[in-house]
Amino acid sequence: MVKLVAMFKKPADTSSFDDHYEKIHIPLVRKMPGLRRLETSKVTGAPMSVPAFYRMAEMYFDDQQSLQESIMSPDGMAAAKDLLSFAKEVVQMFFADVAE
Amino acid sequence: MVKLVAMFKKPADTSSFDDHYEKIHIPLVRKMPGLRRLETSKVTGAPMSVPAFYRMAEMYFDDQQSLQESIMSPDGMAAAKDLLSFAKEVVQMFFADVAE
Repeated sequence: MVKLVAMFKKPADTSSFDDHYEKIHIPLVRKMPGLRRLETSKVTGAPMSVPAFYRMAEMYFDDQQSLQESIMSPDGMAAAKDLLSFAKEVVQMFFADVAE
Repeated sequence: MVKLVAMFKKPADTSSFDDHYEKIHIPLVRKMPGLRRLETSKVTGAPMSVPAFYRMAEMYFDDQQSLQESIMSPDGMAAAKDLLSFAKEVVQMFFADVAE
């Protein structure tokens, strides 16, 4: 299993960010072909420090090829385009192999 | 469900880091009371950029109270002490509420 991870730093306007994220962006992500599981989470704090992030989303796929094909699909491109429209300044993404 | 997330930047010596992480640290984490699931992953790349991280680990607990009790338990303290012994310069952690 592999995943595409999106880490979000805290946006300037959390209310409008959350609204767009939940009502528009997540439904677009769910349309991505080959998506096996989506785990979204809200950061609540950090041990003895201020957390570096605000939210995260993990999109699971069978393998790296499925993930790449999904990203390059029309639904993947639509999700990416939407992401850049409201989260460009706060998002960072990476791919990871999931061990267990 | 809540999780404790550890994000690791790339260490200077990946070989000795990986060795300690896999053989000593992960077994200590698995001893933490209340741990429902552990997901470890290795970062493999990033879309059109260099990934900001090297590895990540997600430790799942029933709720924030179970997580806090686990961190403060002898096994939790032992895992934290070990973490600081080899990963202090590269690790950042946070708590998150898992939506789904």
